[in-house]
Amino acid sequence: MVMLTKQIRLTKDLLNELQMLVEWGLYPNISEAVRDAVRRLVTGNEAPIKQLQSPGLDKNKEVKAQEVKENLNKELKKQFQKPKGTEDFFPEEMSIKNKVFDVLRKNALLYGFTEVDSPVIEDLNLLKAKQGEEIVGQIFTIEQKSEEELALRAEFTPSLARMFISEQKAIPKPVKWFCINKVFRYERPQAGRAREFFQFNVEIYGSNKSEADAEIINLAISSLKDLGLTEKDFFVKINNRKLIQGLLLEIVDEKLFDGVMRVIDKKNKITEQEWDSEFEKLGLERTKIEQIKRVLNSDIDSLNPKSEMAKNGLQELKGIMNFLDKKFIKIDISTVRGLAYYTGIVFEIYDTKQKFRSIAGGGRYDNMIELFRGEATAATGFGMGYSTLRLLLNDRKLLPESELSVDYYIAIVTDDVREKAFEIAAKLRKRYKVDIDLNKRNLRNQLDYAVKIKAKNVIFIGPDEIKQNRIKIKNLESGKEETTNIDTILS
Amino acid sequence: MVMLTKQIRLTKDLLNELQMLVEWGLYPNISEAVRDAVRRLVTGNEAPIKQLQSPGLDKNKEVKAQEVKENLNKELKKQFQKPKGTEDFFPEEMSIKNKVFDVLRKNALLYGFTEVDSPVIEDLNLLKAKQGEEIVGQIFTIEQKSEEELALRAEFTPSLARMFISEQKAIPKPVKWFCINKVFRYERPQAGRAREFFQFNVEIYGSNKSEADAEIINLAISSLKDLGLTEKDFFVKINNRKLIQGLLLEIVDEKLFDGVMRVIDKKNKITEQEWDSEFEKLGLERTKIEQIKRVLNSDIDSLNPKSEMAKNGLQELKGIMNFLDKKFIKIDISTVRGLAYYTGIVFEIYDTKQKFRSIAGGGRYDNMIELFRGEATAATGFGMGYSTLRLLLNDRKLLPESELSVDYYIAIVTDDVREKAFEIAAKLRKRYKVDIDLNKRNLRNQLDYAVKIKAKNVIFIGPDEIKQNRIKIKNLESGKEETTNIDTILS
Repeated sequence: MVMLTKQIRLTKDLLNELQMLVEWGLYPNISEAVRDAVRRLVTGNEAPIKQLQSPGLDKNKEVKAQEVKENLNKELKKQFQKPKGTEDFFPEEMSIKNKVFDVLRKNALLYGFTEVDSPVIEDLNLLKAKQGEEIVGQIFTIEQKSEEELALRAEFTPSLARMFISEQKAIPKPVKWFCINKVFRYERPQAGRAREFFQFNVEIYGSNKSEADAEIINLAISSLKDLGLTEKDFFVKINNRKLIQGLLLEIVDEKLFDGVMRVIDKKNKITEQEWDSEFEKLGLERTKIEQIKRVLNSDIDSLNPKSEMAKNGLQELKGIMNFLDKKFIKIDISTVRGLAYYTGIVFEIYDTKQKFRSIAGGGRYDNMIELFRGEATAATGFGMGYSTLRLLLNDRKLLPESELSVDYYIAIVTDDVREKAFEIAAKLRKRYKVDIDLNKRNLRNQLDYAVKIKAKNVIFIGPDEIKQNRIKIKNLESGKEETTNIDTILS
Repeated sequence: MVMLTKQIRLTKDLLNELQMLVEWGLYPNISEAVRDAVRRLVTGNEAPIKQLQSPGLDKNKEVKAQEVKENLNKELKKQFQKPKGTEDFFPEEMSIKNKVFDVLRKNALLYGFTEVDSPVIEDLNLLKAKQGEEIVGQIFTIEQKSEEELALRAEFTPSLARMFISEQKAIPKPVKWFCINKVFRYERPQAGRAREFFQFNVEIYGSNKSEADAEIINLAISSLKDLGLTEKDFFVKINNRKLIQGLLLEIVDEKLFDGVMRVIDKKNKITEQEWDSEFEKLGLERTKIEQIKRVLNSDIDSLNPKSEMAKNGLQELKGIMNFLDKKFIKIDISTVRGLAYYTGIVFEIYDTKQKFRSIAGGGRYDNMIELFRGEATAATGFGMGYSTLRLLLNDRKLLPESELSVDYYIAIVTDDVREKAFEIAAKLRKRYKVDIDLNKRNLRNQLDYAVKIKAKNVIFIGPDEIKQNRIKIKNLESGKEETTNIDTILS
């Protein structure tokens, strides 16, 4: 018989302890001790370690040996765990996720977007091309086995840009793409920080008009509405990078601009005092800081920008409002988004109570395709994370219900009709979700199982049923029973 | 204005060549040369390098400088590539893949399976627990950033086993799970070897009966039939590990068994001669080799096994046939499957012409859950790869058609009705796939675009249409036009 082999790593501490037991004469040698430990790990044998029963061991050693035994038992029960920051989707969560994704997918298709998918493994240099961002430090890199430097996609934008560029000349513009899949980011393990998570990603390449920005914002709003959320649940903060840039450059020097933007982006994450001190660290005088804050708090109608850039930005911001449902929109000049590469409209979606992190964020990045070595092409897009969306839906009791139950469970009354029962199952399965006894259980245990898996109906198949070509169906919810011709439920 | 930064790696060769141009006095220094190169890479500027025009350069140097210029131009045009062995799914392929997966998913649900999903990133030790397999050498490991040793899932069985074990005590058995997603395997880049590929994975935990094996084989057959394939296109090779094991142990020593199985598994991959010499390398005499071959070629009815193990195996093999559609099944005693851990039924699905690699493979592994540190639980399952399935469907002209076209393209006749047109689009999008002009194009260019994206209908919206609350719809296939009330198509 083939022996099953199994790789088990004993911890160093446990090995040291086993060595000690050897020294005390409880095991003849370390490999015997390890073999015994491994045997226990493999078989799940929790019987006391035989050698520990040996008499004449002094009290202290006995206590210590008992400890080792307990450690072994602990190790023995240790199961493989999922890595920190990852998630197992069991049927219930999977069904919920599938339903939410179906809604997102449906809306993207209704808006005339087509779905794409990119490799999980990408060229590290592609992922690094958007230099200087926080995300680069979070890239999971793969151990090199050849010259290729590979890594896991940390966001979709680089991969989709690469795909667009490779077909750039052939496809009619604008290109409207979406994808729904996982991205991967290394973060130190801590509560709530996911290392792989799902993102709904939407991009339009080849339109520099406000209509394209409005199109993606409307798709985001429409998707959230379709999930049951209303203006009481979420809103869209919107701003324009040209506007904020123009306004700030009227106050601070161009050299300081990047730094100022980074500090502004921290607004909601730190205290007012910390915020002030961040500005001061940039070398800004008190009056300048006050000026910046006045700008960030200003109402759009009170703005009187002087620079062309700010004027353009303001015009774009006002222009896009014509295409948006105003009850969802809040213009907020302090919304800047961290990334350096936005060039026009930027937006973020939050729950109205701002209880959670942002649900979605995006904007226009007209230099992005060029950045990835394509021909200059206007582009706008957003990403929406599933984790926060799920939190919000759950908070508002709007999570779709999971759908796991089968329509029929086929209970086999006697063994002689077993094969016939499987034939009937096969026929029913052309249309219905059907489960059937796979364990040759007695009728009582079959019914127990049917109830546990929440089958809607049980069909009883026995010799009489086969002879008369009639089956008994019991509705497990109502308890009602009916007898019908087998062919009736198939027709 | 914020400068966009860009990371560009010049090849070493190119750097050396640039250094040469510096030495020839064409650039004042290397950083100037690099800056010029980078500027060309960023802007896509293909103008001749100015300095190369400098007169008085000798002929040889002029030729060489010309070469450098060409190399620069080549580099300049170089796009990011997808890593070898990965695949981009553009809308067409994505739509086809979605349709195939929908069929697989539908069938699994009809058979009473529920969908699950596991992390892409797993504990390396989990993946290695099935020691000694080819797959372990193909694991993509992640560069360690902490104590955790992480890797990409190379198959689903370990992850799903881990998930099952974590809930083992709570869930009613049998558990019937499936998943459809990517697995990752490092293979040296070569034609046709994918490093990430989709797999349809099916598992039943908690039944040691032939009915469970039949259930998964029937699900596989039913899925393939639902995709349009018939017994003319594919068949299932089936065998039983106990049978082959019992029969072989009547011939060869237990010590040689693993080796013999590995050689048998190579049967269809090497020539008869190579096969013979593989057997000889194990130290088998000629007569033994002939005996083994006779067993492998024997008809099931002519077998007369002596050992209990082989007798049990034969009985199981005959038993499962009662639950299978015989026209798809071929009992083949030489089908052993490489993996050491199968304990009962094994099967592989091939196209009838055996033109492609196996479409699916699986079997019973009753020790598997224990192997992953769970409580002993009978298990059976299979994996089906999308790549080969797609090849077969394509070969039989059964690939589903992609579905990318929108129902309506909204053409905006004059600028003043633009916002109104977007409102109409929003209404139509509650039910139809709708695209609309995002580029402020003239009518002619809008129609060009509508034709290019294969819109089914074009709706014209102009001032008259708005005034009269009527719209003109043109069917792009038939060319037929009709005028209708806006609300009609919405009701």
